[in-house]
Amino acid sequence: MMQPLEIDILVQGGTIVAMDAARQVIKDGAVAIKGSEIVWIGSQDEIGAQFLPAQKLDASGKVVIPGLVNTHGHWAMTLFRGLVDDVPLEAWLDRIWKVEAAQINAETMAAGTELAMVEMIRGGTTCAADMYWYYNESFDAVLRAGFRMVNGPSFADIPGFEERRKESCNAAIALLDRYQGQPLIQQCVQAHATYTTNLKMLEDIRQIAEERGLLFITHAAESKGEMAMVKEKYGMTPIEVLDKAGLLTEKTLLAHCVHLTDAEIERLAETGTSVAHCPSSNLKLSSGIARVADLLKAGVNVALGTDGPASNNDLDMFHEAQLAALVQKGVTGDPTVLPAAQVFSMMTIDGARAVGLADKVGSLEVGKLADLAVIDFDAPNLTPVYDLYSHLIYAAAASDVSDVIIHGQMVMQDRQLLTLDEEKVKTQARKIAEKVRLI
Amino acid sequence: MMQPLEIDILVQGGTIVAMDAARQVIKDGAVAIKGSEIVWIGSQDEIGAQFLPAQKLDASGKVVIPGLVNTHGHWAMTLFRGLVDDVPLEAWLDRIWKVEAAQINAETMAAGTELAMVEMIRGGTTCAADMYWYYNESFDAVLRAGFRMVNGPSFADIPGFEERRKESCNAAIALLDRYQGQPLIQQCVQAHATYTTNLKMLEDIRQIAEERGLLFITHAAESKGEMAMVKEKYGMTPIEVLDKAGLLTEKTLLAHCVHLTDAEIERLAETGTSVAHCPSSNLKLSSGIARVADLLKAGVNVALGTDGPASNNDLDMFHEAQLAALVQKGVTGDPTVLPAAQVFSMMTIDGARAVGLADKVGSLEVGKLADLAVIDFDAPNLTPVYDLYSHLIYAAAASDVSDVIIHGQMVMQDRQLLTLDEEKVKTQARKIAEKVRLI
Repeated sequence: MMQPLEIDILVQGGTIVAMDAARQVIKDGAVAIKGSEIVWIGSQDEIGAQFLPAQKLDASGKVVIPGLVNTHGHWAMTLFRGLVDDVPLEAWLDRIWKVEAAQINAETMAAGTELAMVEMIRGGTTCAADMYWYYNESFDAVLRAGFRMVNGPSFADIPGFEERRKESCNAAIALLDRYQGQPLIQQCVQAHATYTTNLKMLEDIRQIAEERGLLFITHAAESKGEMAMVKEKYGMTPIEVLDKAGLLTEKTLLAHCVHLTDAEIERLAETGTSVAHCPSSNLKLSSGIARVADLLKAGVNVALGTDGPASNNDLDMFHEAQLAALVQKGVTGDPTVLPAAQVFSMMTIDGARAVGLADKVGSLEVGKLADLAVIDFDAPNLTPVYDLYSHLIYAAAASDVSDVIIHGQMVMQDRQLLTLDEEKVKTQARKIAEKVRLI
Repeated sequence: MMQPLEIDILVQGGTIVAMDAARQVIKDGAVAIKGSEIVWIGSQDEIGAQFLPAQKLDASGKVVIPGLVNTHGHWAMTLFRGLVDDVPLEAWLDRIWKVEAAQINAETMAAGTELAMVEMIRGGTTCAADMYWYYNESFDAVLRAGFRMVNGPSFADIPGFEERRKESCNAAIALLDRYQGQPLIQQCVQAHATYTTNLKMLEDIRQIAEERGLLFITHAAESKGEMAMVKEKYGMTPIEVLDKAGLLTEKTLLAHCVHLTDAEIERLAETGTSVAHCPSSNLKLSSGIARVADLLKAGVNVALGTDGPASNNDLDMFHEAQLAALVQKGVTGDPTVLPAAQVFSMMTIDGARAVGLADKVGSLEVGKLADLAVIDFDAPNLTPVYDLYSHLIYAAAASDVSDVIIHGQMVMQDRQLLTLDEEKVKTQARKIAEKVRLI
């Protein structure tokens, strides 16, 4: 008889929604985790005595899903959650820029980043993209908490940029070097948007991305105002500018993409460019409604993002998924678009693909990293159960998430956070808010 | 010195969002409840020793709001939650009608109604309108649980109706007589819709409603299919039919109202007719998007409804409110429409007005019935706090509700239901689902 293999965690008893290519759903299943990896997955009947787990997680009556992937956000804007709502974009930006200038520093950045992770872990998100400032502080916060972050230096055209162009590139490269090889960090290079950059800068970004094989992320075609500014600046649309800069590739993720022509949708499809759809933010700021059904029909990889909590105002991927499905059915007049299983794919494996991690996370498979969430299907809003995907999209709430594992580490068990001091995080955010309120 | 007044419950320490005419927000407040009524409300500083409470509810760090009012739903469809999604309306109806015919009976009706109340109480809803079958069973379930229901006999044109017209009216009147004077039940008369009734039947309904001073509820202008059917049957729109039948009044509540002309919006405003806006259901079934911003601008009283959980798929009023606000900003292109405080009004006092209970519930005021919910603002998704209304609409979740009082009775305390056996309710729903699955 073979010696049982020592493993770290055995998740057992739940129904596994694997999101692998076969879309396996395994009743009374088990997931064996050793180190950061999934080493076995299947039915409890078949597991026998092959593993000796250091820790067991009982998922009986629950559903085990890949950790959710939030592909767009500005995490530390948790600090400005609900600070300004229900006003035109200009008034919103005016207020936000003022408080950012006064209150975003290394310390507050770490605090806001931690609050974002508290909320995201509680809602089953295990991997998320960020675009903000003070990268060192946010990377360090992520490493302390054991969260998976997609982030990297972001470029924007500021006065004097031309003179400091080389310096900026060097700073970006130094940052990338510093966090190179950290398994929890998926590095990328970012541009704020085409209207806040220029073709030279986009060329620099492309060069860094190509040399290092990195993902590129930017905002694109979000609002009508942006479309007008880009037209004036370049005589082109944002998508055309990015195409000209050679930045529509399989390693590009474009946030928003609300205003697209048919030809642009086709171009995104043929270049393999991914889209981060952010319905809450697009609706709340009246930016418009992205043509998600058309994008999916054309074969574009569409993932979901919450955007920053100052324009959402939460980091709840279940909200985002439900909203995406409902709004597309409403605006297209076709209730069959964005069916539940497809939307669940958008928030898991398609999200992983969008951030260049499809071979590592986004589905529960042997050899992949152990990023997963356990959903308590005992909740009244999930009773009774006919279809798992339907419940995950149309009825589940962040509060139904009971346990979360990231990179093989238990970060939430029975709704208790294990790697973040939630009370401390909330207290420090409240203290910062006291100052923000005075600005 | 005066003897202190013996009261039943003292809610103390929370911030009170009263939703009275002055829109008072009282920090470190207190609400004194005697029997079913609010007898005092104000700041803790001012309360002194005037009350001797039998029970205290500590709301420190929390927010006390009027119980939410869900103005449209088919409660027992909780049993069919997620049974059929992402299909055209005809396919949806075909499946739902089959399972309803086979599985809705007196026993299952009570079970489904109880499950709806479990979910609604957990989400801070204290009063809701229902339109389904087996009124006796649902009224009895409501009285057992201590929930506030708006319901009454519903008319629909079925084969042989003409011969049994008088009989139908008599049955409706007998039902109304039976539950007359029950303080938890707001009686009404209902018609399924204009396309499933006729002018004679609407005349009967109007007569009963007028004689008894009752609210009238019906579905109206929900889908394009309905618009076509009504045009063919009457040569009019649903709103025109109801107007002709004398059923547009201050005591009328119309569910949906997705397809309205400018003239119809004006007519609803001038007659004081209320609208139950159900954005989740309207989007999910691709019925369209109601012109809520226009309705509000015209002065129509618009409230919110979840509709049935077979087309939503939850009974979460926070979801509904957030969706209503976001979608209107998105489709109108104006981020200032449906600001948070107005949407909170729609889910509280405007909802109470829509169901004819504005003088009794929907706001926290002395002399009103004690229907309230306590929201735990300690949640990370509600941290930090700048604006209470913003958080209540854009960031709060059903799971943030910690305590609920209906008609002066504590029905949930610290997230534990006190008048419903939640485990039993879920178990019976799961048993019924086993049978539904076979149909």
